[in-house]
Amino acid sequence: FLGQSFESSAFFYNSGFLQKNNNLEEKISSLKEKPSKDLLDNSDRDSRFRRTETDFSNLYARDLLPAKNGEEPTMQFLLEVVDILTNYVRKTFDRSTKVLDFHHPHQLLEGMEGFNLELSDQPESLEQILVDCRDTLKYGVRTGHPRFFNQLSTGLDIIGLAGEWLTSTANTNMFTYEIAPVFVLMEQLTLRKMREIIGWPNGEGDGIFSPGGAISNMYSVMIARYKFFPEVKAKGMTAAPRLVLFTSEHSHYSIKKASAALGFGTENLILLSTDERGRVIPADLEAKVIDAKARGCVPMFVNATAGSTVYGAFDPIHEIADICEKYNMWLHVDGAWGGGLLMSRKHRHKLSGVERANSVTWNPHKMMGVPLQCSAILVRERGVLSGCNSMCAGYLFQPDKQYDVSYDTGDKAIQCGRHVDIFKFWLMWKAKGTVGFEQHIDKCLDLSHYLYTKIKDRQGYQMVFEGEPQHTNVCFWYLPPGIRGMPDGQEKRERLHKVAPRIKAMMMESGTTMVGYQPQGDKVNFFRMVISNPAATRSDIDFLTDEIERLGRDL
Amino acid sequence: FLGQSFESSAFFYNSGFLQKNNNLEEKISSLKEKPSKDLLDNSDRDSRFRRTETDFSNLYARDLLPAKNGEEPTMQFLLEVVDILTNYVRKTFDRSTKVLDFHHPHQLLEGMEGFNLELSDQPESLEQILVDCRDTLKYGVRTGHPRFFNQLSTGLDIIGLAGEWLTSTANTNMFTYEIAPVFVLMEQLTLRKMREIIGWPNGEGDGIFSPGGAISNMYSVMIARYKFFPEVKAKGMTAAPRLVLFTSEHSHYSIKKASAALGFGTENLILLSTDERGRVIPADLEAKVIDAKARGCVPMFVNATAGSTVYGAFDPIHEIADICEKYNMWLHVDGAWGGGLLMSRKHRHKLSGVERANSVTWNPHKMMGVPLQCSAILVRERGVLSGCNSMCAGYLFQPDKQYDVSYDTGDKAIQCGRHVDIFKFWLMWKAKGTVGFEQHIDKCLDLSHYLYTKIKDRQGYQMVFEGEPQHTNVCFWYLPPGIRGMPDGQEKRERLHKVAPRIKAMMMESGTTMVGYQPQGDKVNFFRMVISNPAATRSDIDFLTDEIERLGRDL
Repeated sequence: FLGQSFESSAFFYNSGFLQKNNNLEEKISSLKEKPSKDLLDNSDRDSRFRRTETDFSNLYARDLLPAKNGEEPTMQFLLEVVDILTNYVRKTFDRSTKVLDFHHPHQLLEGMEGFNLELSDQPESLEQILVDCRDTLKYGVRTGHPRFFNQLSTGLDIIGLAGEWLTSTANTNMFTYEIAPVFVLMEQLTLRKMREIIGWPNGEGDGIFSPGGAISNMYSVMIARYKFFPEVKAKGMTAAPRLVLFTSEHSHYSIKKASAALGFGTENLILLSTDERGRVIPADLEAKVIDAKARGCVPMFVNATAGSTVYGAFDPIHEIADICEKYNMWLHVDGAWGGGLLMSRKHRHKLSGVERANSVTWNPHKMMGVPLQCSAILVRERGVLSGCNSMCAGYLFQPDKQYDVSYDTGDKAIQCGRHVDIFKFWLMWKAKGTVGFEQHIDKCLDLSHYLYTKIKDRQGYQMVFEGEPQHTNVCFWYLPPGIRGMPDGQEKRERLHKVAPRIKAMMMESGTTMVGYQPQGDKVNFFRMVISNPAATRSDIDFLTDEIERLGRDL
Repeated sequence: FLGQSFESSAFFYNSGFLQKNNNLEEKISSLKEKPSKDLLDNSDRDSRFRRTETDFSNLYARDLLPAKNGEEPTMQFLLEVVDILTNYVRKTFDRSTKVLDFHHPHQLLEGMEGFNLELSDQPESLEQILVDCRDTLKYGVRTGHPRFFNQLSTGLDIIGLAGEWLTSTANTNMFTYEIAPVFVLMEQLTLRKMREIIGWPNGEGDGIFSPGGAISNMYSVMIARYKFFPEVKAKGMTAAPRLVLFTSEHSHYSIKKASAALGFGTENLILLSTDERGRVIPADLEAKVIDAKARGCVPMFVNATAGSTVYGAFDPIHEIADICEKYNMWLHVDGAWGGGLLMSRKHRHKLSGVERANSVTWNPHKMMGVPLQCSAILVRERGVLSGCNSMCAGYLFQPDKQYDVSYDTGDKAIQCGRHVDIFKFWLMWKAKGTVGFEQHIDKCLDLSHYLYTKIKDRQGYQMVFEGEPQHTNVCFWYLPPGIRGMPDGQEKRERLHKVAPRIKAMMMESGTTMVGYQPQGDKVNFFRMVISNPAATRSDIDFLTDEIERLGRDL
């Protein structure tokens, strides 16, 4: 089955994606000098700052650059901060370090020894600022720790981290080529590459990086509305008939937030039934489309989820696309979580049909391990994204600049200023190559397969849905010995419902590991294990189950 | 005039803001140990990494942590990156460094020596990655350079930079206390402080940091709609009467983007006339409200701009608030640019009446010099922000956690994942104190006064509007000698229209300085000088005018 999809992976074989780039590489290396060690050994090396013992207790922010003679204290201060950060990084990967040092809100608010969150009128010394930095990390959560499994975004990629440090040092804004020339081009090239990987011919289309998957999904609804009812931009929703949207009952809540925000109303978002595995039932979509039309509504937009938040389910895109074509609806694929699988020849078949989507959300900050935030909305048709959002502000997007202003892409956004989210991702892609992302994804899915195989028939565990998970989400109940023998019924349900929260609370208090839980529909609280952390190994999976059993034994 | 407002600054004197905090400080310092040098000299010092000469040409991303034996190359790689960054920082403040090294898009796309933007399948060596980091900075724009005046966000604050480096190392997400305990509390305390400074009793109310002023402004429109027509959340815009919004013709285009996105339609955003200085004429607002009502529309929302983008104008908030109260409309103050002036006892009178607003946008990343992105939407009434946006996703906001879940603030956002924008701002506030921000703001306004005084009667300059600017925006035409003697008329206008773009293009080619220009209404292209950069001095202002005259002499 996997072998077949491997061969039928049109993108990798027909579009010659891998080959093409190798050729490009050759062409480029013939054109450019190979970077040599000399490039690093340039004049900057002479001026390297050495850390010296500095007394920060009499230094203040006002003594740093741009202050006169501010260079030396600035360098020493930054190097001291880096020392704190690199120590934090080292310890994050050390399994003897706790994932977190939990405190209740009132404890942190009352102030810990030497650490006080209140703001004041007068400046603190740089020594106190360094203590504050250290304590902020101390009382936080190590999301890069090999045993942190709590969210879809985990891990601490070193290249990505370097990329973020550089991004914040450059401190610029994505609205125009004028002030972000390199970043704007990186964004365009990377978006094109992502569209190629989706399978759109020649990577044509449009897109933009947004501040997260929820905003990317919001874009998709806005763009769909503009495509079908462009008059809404000027005249508002009253210019359109009663529009309805469709999404799975298992889909992310951002679709609902978008329906409310954009003026559709949550009642006009119709939830689709799913099978036992959390995948949309296409026949239910068609039935609800027909029903909506019969009620005088206009079905406009369907969201298919590629990798649902809780179950990791992939909706059947081809069958949904058929219905969208038949009824002339926009097909959006929310691949915030599952989009990363497109990088894997082994797993991309799970998004089969994604090339038929009109728009795709894909968050590299989830399955691809890119630091937060990094989310893209990709659109198949060119022009509709800018048509939808552009307002042509004269103070920013002057037409009479000396360069090609088609690179001033900011007017496509609903934002004005826009954070540079591209550089870390671009740098990671350079450093890992496409194959590096593929290896990362395959490894995470292997690990979740290991967990699934381990617990599916293990005493005390019960799977939330049958069969091998499609993504790295493994959803299960742990039944403490005292509950196992109970007859099925309300009392057992009530007791089981309290197990995951109690184990989670003890995990957090002891700081050993973190994993999420939630109820879903009529199912009581269960654990949702997700793996996106490149630092995790089988031993960490074993640690997690041991810990659940240790903490849950007597519940 | 200024003296009077100084004394009448109700916030600083009546609410006892400065005093209160001094008291708090005393209370706290009696409770806590003073941090001592010893806190820095802890065990971490022993394990400090020293940079050693490392050959990165045979090292790859896969050799870094979490790889086995990855610690040493990881530390060396990060320290090498830091070396690149600290050198960049040093040079940014050095006036002999260019602001930018301009290249056209096609030049960068074709690939510069050793720098190729294309992504490839195979990994690059860490040596190449370091070259890429260096080149990315080389071909970018130094937004912290003392002669960069191009945007409202300029400067490179060292404390803020350290804060961003730490934020990216922590790599977490704002949705729950569970994974961002310290940052969530910092956000709450800082938002409260900002509300106190606005003048809301006891700092009560609500708010959130958002990915920029445009999104903050979008929030204000959404919240207003929810307040007056909560049924729109479920039923959509068709459940409401025809709603109209009001904003100045000089206001930021994000209000228009919000009208389009949220389903009001840009035609239902009514533009208000302004006086010669770009300030809303209150009588025009009232006339247009009456007219809208006569046409059967429901006036719902008024945006008053505190610091307009081009002129830096402050709308008269008190007079607008009177009209909002009379006609039961939501008053939003867009202080994205001007909000920072609230920190100055000398200048906060320009926002007099802001305490009557229902919501306020305030971007610390503009006038307060905080690195991008840092924008807050503040709301006077508690509950309406969460009422508007909450969807209660079970997988994230479990009610049965062991801590007080009222600190899980993520459901108030239109986002799900949300970048940590608070830490750098909190750290800067700690390091500078309230007084440090005040000094920064007063200094920038002093500098713009210097520029205004210098050029207002200078030969070859013509001011775009009469009188002292309210903010740091100084808007002017430079008339090259060849144009000065021309009779007023179309030909002169056409030639003058081309002057600013040409000078700007030459500035960018020579890399010496950057300043913005644009047309406005019937006014041809003029320069808009803005000062938010703490590194700028009078000599940099002199440099700018010299440069304009040098480059523009023969146009």
